[in-house]
Amino acid sequence: MNIHELSSVNDTICAISTPPGRGGIAVIRVSGPTALTIVQERWQGKPLASMASHTVHLGHLTDQNGEVLDQVVLTVYRAPNSFTGEDIVELACHGSTWIQQQVVQTLIDAGCRHATAGEFTRRAFSNGRMDLSQAEAVADVIEAQSRAAHRVAMSQMRGRYSDEIKLLRDKLLHFVALIELELDFSEEDVTFADRSDVTALARDIHSVITRLADSYHDGNAIKDGMPVAIVGQTNAGKSTLLNALLRDNRALVSDVHGTTRDTIEDTVVMGGTLFRFIDTAGIRQSTDTVEQMGIERTWQAIDKANIVLWIVDVTSADTSMIHDILGRCEGKALIAILNKIDLDDDIAARSELKDLLPAGTPIVAISAKHDSDVETLRELIVKTATQPEVDTDAVIVTNARHYQALTRARDAIGRAIDGLESGLSGDLLDQDIRECLHWLGEITGEITTDAILGEIFSHFCIGK
Amino acid sequence: MNIHELSSVNDTICAISTPPGRGGIAVIRVSGPTALTIVQERWQGKPLASMASHTVHLGHLTDQNGEVLDQVVLTVYRAPNSFTGEDIVELACHGSTWIQQQVVQTLIDAGCRHATAGEFTRRAFSNGRMDLSQAEAVADVIEAQSRAAHRVAMSQMRGRYSDEIKLLRDKLLHFVALIELELDFSEEDVTFADRSDVTALARDIHSVITRLADSYHDGNAIKDGMPVAIVGQTNAGKSTLLNALLRDNRALVSDVHGTTRDTIEDTVVMGGTLFRFIDTAGIRQSTDTVEQMGIERTWQAIDKANIVLWIVDVTSADTSMIHDILGRCEGKALIAILNKIDLDDDIAARSELKDLLPAGTPIVAISAKHDSDVETLRELIVKTATQPEVDTDAVIVTNARHYQALTRARDAIGRAIDGLESGLSGDLLDQDIRECLHWLGEITGEITTDAILGEIFSHFCIGK
Repeated sequence: MNIHELSSVNDTICAISTPPGRGGIAVIRVSGPTALTIVQERWQGKPLASMASHTVHLGHLTDQNGEVLDQVVLTVYRAPNSFTGEDIVELACHGSTWIQQQVVQTLIDAGCRHATAGEFTRRAFSNGRMDLSQAEAVADVIEAQSRAAHRVAMSQMRGRYSDEIKLLRDKLLHFVALIELELDFSEEDVTFADRSDVTALARDIHSVITRLADSYHDGNAIKDGMPVAIVGQTNAGKSTLLNALLRDNRALVSDVHGTTRDTIEDTVVMGGTLFRFIDTAGIRQSTDTVEQMGIERTWQAIDKANIVLWIVDVTSADTSMIHDILGRCEGKALIAILNKIDLDDDIAARSELKDLLPAGTPIVAISAKHDSDVETLRELIVKTATQPEVDTDAVIVTNARHYQALTRARDAIGRAIDGLESGLSGDLLDQDIRECLHWLGEITGEITTDAILGEIFSHFCIGK
Repeated sequence: MNIHELSSVNDTICAISTPPGRGGIAVIRVSGPTALTIVQERWQGKPLASMASHTVHLGHLTDQNGEVLDQVVLTVYRAPNSFTGEDIVELACHGSTWIQQQVVQTLIDAGCRHATAGEFTRRAFSNGRMDLSQAEAVADVIEAQSRAAHRVAMSQMRGRYSDEIKLLRDKLLHFVALIELELDFSEEDVTFADRSDVTALARDIHSVITRLADSYHDGNAIKDGMPVAIVGQTNAGKSTLLNALLRDNRALVSDVHGTTRDTIEDTVVMGGTLFRFIDTAGIRQSTDTVEQMGIERTWQAIDKANIVLWIVDVTSADTSMIHDILGRCEGKALIAILNKIDLDDDIAARSELKDLLPAGTPIVAISAKHDSDVETLRELIVKTATQPEVDTDAVIVTNARHYQALTRARDAIGRAIDGLESGLSGDLLDQDIRECLHWLGEITGEITTDAILGEIFSHFCIGK
């Protein structure tokens, strides 16, 4: 099955590629076999057929009645030397929303189809301009909100990750060759491959896949934000604290609100690190079913978090749940917060709290409502976040789909190792190795289906 | 005074030119004498010095530490064949807000200055790439929300308006030459210019300027929206009607809300025409000073409007102010609206109202609250709006600054005509003609000041 045939299409698509709204200029991209002839129908200027690839030309674009819509700057890219591998025409027009709509409309009238989300990148993949993990990285690059997330996505887009997977596949194919050679001559009871060499090779592959899969925990924190759970009794001031933490930086995160709002999560970049704050329901012993469900979600939030902010209302200083919380925070960074110090700055409460907590646990006294000492807390969170230093050489997995494929590949190669050790026959080993190959192939797109591709590219923006 | 020296600058500027926010790609524009050398410092790819003008190149852009920020498509325009007339480098990067910020930052670190609003267009003007009225039209093109507004702005940007003004100036200069020739030989009491020919020329100029100035009323309606005042007694449902009229189209107007909100005005495109609805305070006889001020503003809104919607609450049917309103609506299209027909569809009220109104005044019965028959009203408004048919040949003035200059030029040439008729001496005539020339020169920018330019370009978006 040739993946490049799966989504073969030969129509010409167009879409606005620049951000939505009004600006100085906007760019409309047209890609496909008839890109040049379609645009020519609406073009007043030098004939497109006479333009060299990668050149820029000033002219006018018209509607279907020949009325000038705008003066535009037109760029031609000839196949295969373009982003999609097809002929591409890019039209830079004035950035009024009205003109942008009209330009798209006149192109559709002239025979273009409006591109679906991610369709340009999908064509780049289908035409062999990039593999699937590189195509996915294009979306990650566009969504990156911090230097670390950007570095990881850029590294993946530039093919470092693909190279690592390809190396693994080559090793596996060598492994398969050895095993299958043995199978071919199995009747003669010859063992071509030295089983201990083969086992060493399998262990090597297993360790690389495991390292990649393990990097997902850090990778996910880099891409989606270091998870920080805010927990505490009801009315301790959790939501007020969340707002105080986000306040100064809210403008920076406004474009992701839509995706996080309904889970009471919010991301913000502090000290160059992307944090994902998770507000939780108040914790208290309860027999009410609905409330218990909320508390169960709070425990889950703690499980997901790297950092837990435990907030105590200094006026009530209710620490009755402290042991449950501490038991749940094993291996996580805990910061205790005494809130509402504007109402009652109780020194006794501090030392009492200190006695309850493991030695060295930081305690910060704040007033979330009056934004007092919230900055101190913010600095402490940044310091606590031991963000892994991302050097551009390390390959880090940030994609849930890849993580799933890697864990399955790891399980398959693990079974092969067990089989080698227990003297399993070659044909059963062969099956495990081929499964491992399959999962790695899904990452780079050698093996895939239209359903998987549809799912992947539906998360792209239109025009990319 | 050479205007091109007024704002002479020789630094290199940069800004994001595409709309703000996240998209597939974004374009950062760099213009100035060192554009190529500054970008070269952050560029990994073919050397910029070797690139021909109007060519496109793929490469990588780095930060000041040499770390790759993004893969970008770079376009070079060499002076003077560029939008600004200077060397321009355009960088199309991935459209993440993070990358956009980083690209601008690395360019500033390398020696660019961040462009101010409209600075690229201002440079295009300063370098003689376009005159001032064409530069102003660039902003109008970007803000155009309807076909008519777009047509007028495009016509102005392409120089048709400038051509008409230049023609006027040429005629005036001919006029001045005739008058000054007479002055030079005044001692000899020779009259070179036939005064009746000169008067005919002056009348011709006066009539063209008057036509242009008169077109402003239509032009303003096209650009800022046909003004429609909603008036009526307090509690007749004016605001509810405004909301009902805007409801279906609110998304289309969201990007102008910020500019109109605080005057309780809102624009919407209906049937291809841009309307500007003006909600007013309720009218009732009052001795309260504050309320009287509100009513005074209502009368002013009627004065500004082309169409007046007079809304009557059918449950109270209070028509006591009808004569004041009718007196104010001279020469305007009036539509009477019986509102709240869901509460009391009183046929008697309709015929009573009809008797009070001038024959032929349309009456529409609606329920604004329940959106009943609002569509009928909408269609009637569109039909009533005798939007002048804008053909691309007619020059229409849409700019308040131009209108002011035109009225002053018209006054000056008017005084010259009076002077000619009363046998005024040549040197006094000369003064009037030169004043007329001055005002026309302000439109195209032959005569201007830094203050005027600053005011004009401050209304542009950054990056254009």
